[in-house]
Amino acid sequence: MKTLTVDLGARSYPIFIGHNLLADPALYAPYIKGKQVLIVTNETVAPLYLEQVKSALTGYQVDEVILPDGEEFKNLEILNRIYDELLAKQHNRTTTLIALGGGVIGDMTGFAAASYQRGVNFIQVPTTLLSQVDSSVGGKTAVNHKLGKNMIGAFHQPQCVIADTETLNTLPARELSAGIAEVIKYGLICDAEFYHWLQQNMASLLAKQPAALAYAIERSCQDKADVVAQDETESGIRAILNLGHTFGHAIEAHQGYGNWLHGEAVATGMLMAADLGCRMGDLSSSDVEALRTLLLQAGLPVVGPQDMSVEDYTSRMLVDKKVLDGRIRLVLLRRIGEAYMTSDIVADQLTATLTAGEQLGLI
Amino acid sequence: MKTLTVDLGARSYPIFIGHNLLADPALYAPYIKGKQVLIVTNETVAPLYLEQVKSALTGYQVDEVILPDGEEFKNLEILNRIYDELLAKQHNRTTTLIALGGGVIGDMTGFAAASYQRGVNFIQVPTTLLSQVDSSVGGKTAVNHKLGKNMIGAFHQPQCVIADTETLNTLPARELSAGIAEVIKYGLICDAEFYHWLQQNMASLLAKQPAALAYAIERSCQDKADVVAQDETESGIRAILNLGHTFGHAIEAHQGYGNWLHGEAVATGMLMAADLGCRMGDLSSSDVEALRTLLLQAGLPVVGPQDMSVEDYTSRMLVDKKVLDGRIRLVLLRRIGEAYMTSDIVADQLTATLTAGEQLGLI
Repeated sequence: MKTLTVDLGARSYPIFIGHNLLADPALYAPYIKGKQVLIVTNETVAPLYLEQVKSALTGYQVDEVILPDGEEFKNLEILNRIYDELLAKQHNRTTTLIALGGGVIGDMTGFAAASYQRGVNFIQVPTTLLSQVDSSVGGKTAVNHKLGKNMIGAFHQPQCVIADTETLNTLPARELSAGIAEVIKYGLICDAEFYHWLQQNMASLLAKQPAALAYAIERSCQDKADVVAQDETESGIRAILNLGHTFGHAIEAHQGYGNWLHGEAVATGMLMAADLGCRMGDLSSSDVEALRTLLLQAGLPVVGPQDMSVEDYTSRMLVDKKVLDGRIRLVLLRRIGEAYMTSDIVADQLTATLTAGEQLGLI
Repeated sequence: MKTLTVDLGARSYPIFIGHNLLADPALYAPYIKGKQVLIVTNETVAPLYLEQVKSALTGYQVDEVILPDGEEFKNLEILNRIYDELLAKQHNRTTTLIALGGGVIGDMTGFAAASYQRGVNFIQVPTTLLSQVDSSVGGKTAVNHKLGKNMIGAFHQPQCVIADTETLNTLPARELSAGIAEVIKYGLICDAEFYHWLQQNMASLLAKQPAALAYAIERSCQDKADVVAQDETESGIRAILNLGHTFGHAIEAHQGYGNWLHGEAVATGMLMAADLGCRMGDLSSSDVEALRTLLLQAGLPVVGPQDMSVEDYTSRMLVDKKVLDGRIRLVLLRRIGEAYMTSDIVADQLTATLTAGEQLGLI
């Protein structure tokens, strides 16, 4: 087992990465301060892993909420089921919520923990690659609104994260690919060496080779933790973690949450960001082509939905959280391994990027 | 105009108390960092004061949400209307919410500000005595859940508070009394001198004499600010601000939110706390009688609802936020002007307090 620490002063917490961790009581006990625990999970994950987690929690009042599975359920109405259970079972301020599942479960459980009685503790037990490398680090919690993704939320750090690589054995290939999109992102924004490693080791990751997975998770978490430690509440540098996300959120919102996986939308969005960067003179066209190749190899989409117009993108992008005073702001790449945020976007270049797939005859 | 400062380090903020403040642009401008403002108010307050506030906000994108009036609308569903408007009008992270109304508007707007895009700024413009002396100080924001009051919320400090005493001229007598309940509370928990002032000046307050009102607001805010500055997130001393609230929340929840005003329930709850303190040997029976007299003079109820049983109280009190490990914890008075928190409650004494009104033939 490897242990990383996310360094946030009084809110620092450990990430445990390894196999056979789910049922180990010693990983939970130091991070549960009261006598009550609520496990929040979903209908897909519960039959696979809920009993293992419960077996590690003897001696506590353990309650559970099993939510429907999918991004389309990440809203205030479904969130209310968590509050219902907490109140019906009289959970108090010392309760600990445990998020057992992917990013949706982590985000919702985290926001429930942030807001129940104005804030209680929670532990992340991510069971998808995406959540192990992304949402488990950094304390962003949220639910969606019909007019925008993650628009309602809070910054709330977990007490610890338990990332058990065994849980990836039951992960569908499409979701593994979606997780790899975020792994590739870390290489692109701040870790060129890791990006090149990914170019050489993609086949091992897709084959779920344990050593390759553990290395990719650890390195991704470390990269993200380093960025978050510099800027916990995203007033500056942290925004680079959103590479591809402004495009990606527009795709997700337009298609209806859950039709495109988050990682798939981010993959396409990262390629759009690279394409725009190329048009702006930062990246070479061979960089863009190499990224397209890597994304395709990872089983990820590289063009947006056929039915999305430029206006469909830009209207959605204008309600993105990164918009300031009516200007679209985007994370772009100066080179592979270095990202920056800019609002100096030339409309024609953006339009060219958004219609590039069409011009290439790809859609 | 008087200016108090709530001292919370980087989150410190001023409270402006005086008359004719609502329409003064200079009180708002330094606390609005972006170009967008959303005023949240209700159907009662909007016709009276919305235009005055808007007149102070020229040069901004000013949007508004007018909610139904009442504690029964302080829930997630109505909260969503604030998010709807923010997103429909494309408000970004630099937006400022303005809460124009009483405690319900302040609590909901504050929680919307705490959670919209993981946190934006807000300004409190309280228009009731209760909100001017209570909810505008301390950063507690929340909505109710059907199983408990204020169970979903966050700590989120405003940028400033503008307490215009002119707004009290339109306040119904019953609501003025409800506000005075919280004013009396500050005397009881930490300011015996102020308590004695209230015993001598209650008639002036009820007559809305401007100088008396301004003094009571200023002293209450100062008392509360002093407590909050010691303990922003209620890990200790701040809990004394909840004198009477555990009993009061049980009454409000049992009766359905909105039937008893919050201040009315707190008044009865404070008398219950005093009665229990007397049974435990802390207060004299003449202290309790003097409090009963003062509350009656202020037009406040001094016995709970006729149809509430001991079990109705205790079952509700067990889901209160102050419960720890299944034990009821209460704020009690050691003497007039000094409160403390205890979980050493003798069940028989609590039962005697909860049935005291009945024994006295009062209900």
